[in-house]
Amino acid sequence: MTTWKDFADLKATQRLTELAQQPYNLARPDSLPPERIAACRASACGFDLLYATQRVDDRVLVALQELADEAGLVAQHKAMKSGAVMNRIIGHASEERQVLHTACRDVFSDTPLAPEATAQAKEQLARLKQFLAEVDSGAVCNGQGQSFTTMLQVGIGGSDLGPRALYLALERYRLPGRSARFIANVDPDDAAAVLSGLDLSRTLINVVSKSGSTLETRTNEELVRTALVNAGLNPARHLVAVTGAGSPMDDPDKYRASFHMYDYIGGRYSATSMVGGVTLGFTLGYDQFVEVLRGAHEMDKAAEQPALRDNLPLLMAMLGIWNRNFLGYNTVAVLPYSQALLRFPAHLQQCDMESNGKQVSRCGSPVTWKTGPIVWGEPGTNGQHAFYQLLHQGTEIVPAEFIGFRCSQHGRDITVSGTTSQQKLVANMLAQSLAMAQGRSHDNPNKHFAGNRPSSVLIAEQLTPYAMGALLALYENRIAFQGFCWNINSFDQEGVQLGKVLADRLLAALSGEKALSADAPESSLLKAAGMAG
Amino acid sequence: MTTWKDFADLKATQRLTELAQQPYNLARPDSLPPERIAACRASACGFDLLYATQRVDDRVLVALQELADEAGLVAQHKAMKSGAVMNRIIGHASEERQVLHTACRDVFSDTPLAPEATAQAKEQLARLKQFLAEVDSGAVCNGQGQSFTTMLQVGIGGSDLGPRALYLALERYRLPGRSARFIANVDPDDAAAVLSGLDLSRTLINVVSKSGSTLETRTNEELVRTALVNAGLNPARHLVAVTGAGSPMDDPDKYRASFHMYDYIGGRYSATSMVGGVTLGFTLGYDQFVEVLRGAHEMDKAAEQPALRDNLPLLMAMLGIWNRNFLGYNTVAVLPYSQALLRFPAHLQQCDMESNGKQVSRCGSPVTWKTGPIVWGEPGTNGQHAFYQLLHQGTEIVPAEFIGFRCSQHGRDITVSGTTSQQKLVANMLAQSLAMAQGRSHDNPNKHFAGNRPSSVLIAEQLTPYAMGALLALYENRIAFQGFCWNINSFDQEGVQLGKVLADRLLAALSGEKALSADAPESSLLKAAGMAG
Repeated sequence: MTTWKDFADLKATQRLTELAQQPYNLARPDSLPPERIAACRASACGFDLLYATQRVDDRVLVALQELADEAGLVAQHKAMKSGAVMNRIIGHASEERQVLHTACRDVFSDTPLAPEATAQAKEQLARLKQFLAEVDSGAVCNGQGQSFTTMLQVGIGGSDLGPRALYLALERYRLPGRSARFIANVDPDDAAAVLSGLDLSRTLINVVSKSGSTLETRTNEELVRTALVNAGLNPARHLVAVTGAGSPMDDPDKYRASFHMYDYIGGRYSATSMVGGVTLGFTLGYDQFVEVLRGAHEMDKAAEQPALRDNLPLLMAMLGIWNRNFLGYNTVAVLPYSQALLRFPAHLQQCDMESNGKQVSRCGSPVTWKTGPIVWGEPGTNGQHAFYQLLHQGTEIVPAEFIGFRCSQHGRDITVSGTTSQQKLVANMLAQSLAMAQGRSHDNPNKHFAGNRPSSVLIAEQLTPYAMGALLALYENRIAFQGFCWNINSFDQEGVQLGKVLADRLLAALSGEKALSADAPESSLLKAAGMAG
Repeated sequence: MTTWKDFADLKATQRLTELAQQPYNLARPDSLPPERIAACRASACGFDLLYATQRVDDRVLVALQELADEAGLVAQHKAMKSGAVMNRIIGHASEERQVLHTACRDVFSDTPLAPEATAQAKEQLARLKQFLAEVDSGAVCNGQGQSFTTMLQVGIGGSDLGPRALYLALERYRLPGRSARFIANVDPDDAAAVLSGLDLSRTLINVVSKSGSTLETRTNEELVRTALVNAGLNPARHLVAVTGAGSPMDDPDKYRASFHMYDYIGGRYSATSMVGGVTLGFTLGYDQFVEVLRGAHEMDKAAEQPALRDNLPLLMAMLGIWNRNFLGYNTVAVLPYSQALLRFPAHLQQCDMESNGKQVSRCGSPVTWKTGPIVWGEPGTNGQHAFYQLLHQGTEIVPAEFIGFRCSQHGRDITVSGTTSQQKLVANMLAQSLAMAQGRSHDNPNKHFAGNRPSSVLIAEQLTPYAMGALLALYENRIAFQGFCWNINSFDQEGVQLGKVLADRLLAALSGEKALSADAPESSLLKAAGMAG
C-alpha cells in the first residue's frame, strides 16, 4: 500500500513554490499562440479540456506530474477502487471504511476491481430492472390500477443534490408521461409547495436515507405519509425506499420495494448507486441509467493513466492544486454554459467542499497547508449578466471552470444575426475564458482589464446520459485526487456533527423535553430570536 | 455634497487595523453571556439582526461608527436617494447618472426625496394598475376571448434574477390560477424546456430589457414569437414590454402594453421598478406588489439613521467591512433557512458582486484596498448536508449571514419528536451560528472545532410581500453603503464589456461575417473546441 505523505513533505512542492513566483503571463501579447492552444488540450470520454488559459507552462506541468507521482495519486485511486480502507484517520477513531462508489459502475466487465461490491451493485441493478419492468407493465400500479407517472424523491444532501442535478440535466430524455420531483428541506413550505402541484394518486414516493434516520427525511416522509392518508391513499402502496441494509428504514412492511446502498458508498458519491438509480431509472428508463453508469465507468478507467496528459481527472486535480496552493486562490467557480446543468454546481459544492473542507491530515495532525476551496457557480450566459464583473475586475481572482457542449439537447434552435443560440452560447464561453486570461489595456482605468485570471474550458458534443455520467465521475475523481494529494480523508464529515448536537439541544428545549440553563447561549439566542416560550 | 474620500485615507481604518490584531474571541468559555446576546441585536421593519456571533466588541463598533461617519455614508445614501449623480468616476468618461431605484418605492408620501423620478414611478404604477384591472376584467384576453393565466418573463441579469427570486419567494401569495415562468439563458434548451410546459394561448409574454438590445433577450424574444406563430397565435396580442423610453423595444406596434424604466435605475436594482412589478403584479395582484414597495421603502427610511444600532443596512454593511477589510475574509455565505428564498442568493450575487467587484476608485485610481467579496449560498437545512463541513472545519473562514422566519408561509406543518418542522428549521439555523462561533475542543483532532467563525442571524416573523421588500432593500442598501465606504462606483459594470467584444468577434467568425486571422487566439480556441468550420 502507498505510504500516505503529508503535502508539505512532498519535494515537488518546493519546486512549485519557486515556479509560482513567476507564473505564465497570460496577459503578455502573443501569450496564446496557436501551438500553445493546440498543445494544452487533453481528452477523455468525449470531453476535451482546453487549459491554455491556465497560468502554467511546461515546467509547471512537469512539476505537477512529479507531485502526483511522489504522492502516489494514481496508485491511491486504484487502491480506493480496489477496496482499500481509504476512509480513515490513522491513530484516531474514524469511520474505517472502504470507498467503493466506483464499484457501482464497474459492472461492464467480468473482472471488476472490487468483485464483492460490484456483485452487490449488480444485484441492486437487477432488482431495479425488474421493478421498472413491473412499473412499465402495470403490475406495479396504484389502488385504482392506474400506472405511476411521477416519482417524488425524499432525501437530503447526497440523497438529493446529485440525483436532482442529474435528473435536471437529463430531463430531455424522459420517458413519455414520466417525471420526478424532489423534497429535501425540513422547511415545511418546501414540502407544501411540491405536494400542492402533485397528483399523489399517480405518484411513487422514493424515500432515500442511508442511515434510515436522517431527521429531515424522516420528518418529510411523515409529512408525505400524512398527505397520502388524507387523500385516501395507502402509503404502503406508494412508498419505496433506498437505504442501508439493516437500517430502521429497511422494512418491507412499510415500503412496496426496497433498494440497498452500502456503507462503502458515501452520500455525496452515491448518485450512481440506487440513490440516483431509482429515480433516474423510473424517469429515463433503465437503459439510459446504464448509459450514465457507462460514462462514469469509462471516466474511472481514464483516471488510471499515469501521465497527466492522458488522465483528465488527474490533470484537473493538479491544475486546481496549482491554483489553490501555489497561486493562493481560495475559490473555484464552476460555470456550465448549459441551463440543464443548473444544479450541477450545487452538487459539486457538496461533493467537493464536504470532501475536502478538512483541517486534519489522514495521519491525525492539523494540516499546515490549504485544503479544499470554496466551490460556487451558476450557468452562463446568465452569470455574465450577474457576477462576472467581479471575475474580470474584482480585487479577488477566481479560477473558473467553464463547461459547454457543441450541440443543444432539444435541437430547437433559432438563427439570429447569422448564428444559432447554441453558437452564441459556446462563443460567449470561449470569449470569457479569453477575456479573463488576456485582459485589455485601456487609458480609462475603469475600462482596463489586468488579465491573468486563470480558467479552463471543458467541452463535449452533447449532454447525453453517457456524457453526464462521465462529467460526474470526472469531478468525483478530481476531488478524490486532490484529497489524496492534501493527505486528508475526503470521505468523512465530522464537521457537520457539532451543529447537529446543538440543534438537538435547542429542539429539546423547544419541545419541553429538557430545559436549558438560563445563562446558556442557547437560551439567550432563542430569546433574542423570539423563539422562546 | 460630501467629499469622496479613499478608504485608505479614512483615519478609523488605522484604529480598526489595530483592533483586528485581537478580535473578540468567540471560542473562549463564557464568550456569549446573556447580556452580550441581548445587546447585540438591532431591528428594522420587522427584522431582527442578532450579531453577538460576530467577532466584534464595543471598541470595534465605535470604530466602525467612526468609519461610517468619516466617510459620510448616511449623507451619501441620502444624496443618492435625492438624485445626486452617484454613478460616475471623476476625471474619466463614465455613465454620469443618478441612482434612483429608491424613488420607485418612495411613493407613499407627498414629499418624496426625488419628486421627478417618483412621479415617473407613480405614472408607471398607475399604468400597471390599469392594465392589471383589464386583465382581471377580461378586457385584456387572448384571441379566443380567454383570460391569461401565465406570465412568461423574458429577460436576463437584472431583468431576471431579482424578479425571479421575488416571485419564487412569494409564490405562496399567488392569485388563484395565476403563475409565472422565466427564460433568461441564450441556451436554446432553456427556452425549449420552458415552452414545452406552457399553454401559449393563455400566456402573456413580458419581455424585459432596459436597452432594448440585450442579445440573449432579443434572441429569446424571437424564439418565443416564432413559437407563437407556429401555434397559430398573434404575437402582438401576447407580448408586453418593459424597457427604457425610446429604446428599440419601445414600440407600441409590437407589444400590447409597454412599461418604462429609466436610466437612473440600474438593472440589478430594478426589481421594485416595472422590471419586477409587471410579473409580480400579474401573479400576486397589484396590492401585494405595493406591499413589496412599502417594505422596501420603510427599509430605505431606516437607512437614514445616523447610528449603526438604529440603521440595520448600515450595521450589516460595517460588519461586512470588518470581516472583509480587517479580518481578511474574501467571501460571504448567504444562507436562508427558507426554501422560498432559494434564488435570493443568486440575486444577491448579481446585486453585490456586479456592484462592488471593482478595481478603480470613484476618483479614478486603482484601489489599494479590498473591495466586494464573493457572495454565494444555498438554503438551509440543505446546505448543512452539503458544504457546511468546510464552514466548520475547512482551512478557509467564511462569514455567514443566516436568514430565517419564525412562521412558515403555508402553515402546513407537522410535529415529529415534539417539534414542528418550522421549529426544527429555526433551531438548526441558530445552532449553526453557535457552532461556528464557539467551536468545541476534542481530543480527536478530527472532531475538534476551532470556532471563531463569524456569522449573523437575520430573523423576521414570516416571509410576506412586505418582509420580502424590506429584505431586498436591506441588502441593496448594505451594498450601496459598502460601495460608498470603499469609494467605488457601485452602479456601473465596465467589467462585462470585454467579454461581449470578444464574443462578438467569435460570432462574426462563426457567421462568416468577418474572418479571424489564423494566429489569433480566437481562431485557435474555436478550433480546439471543435467549433471551427
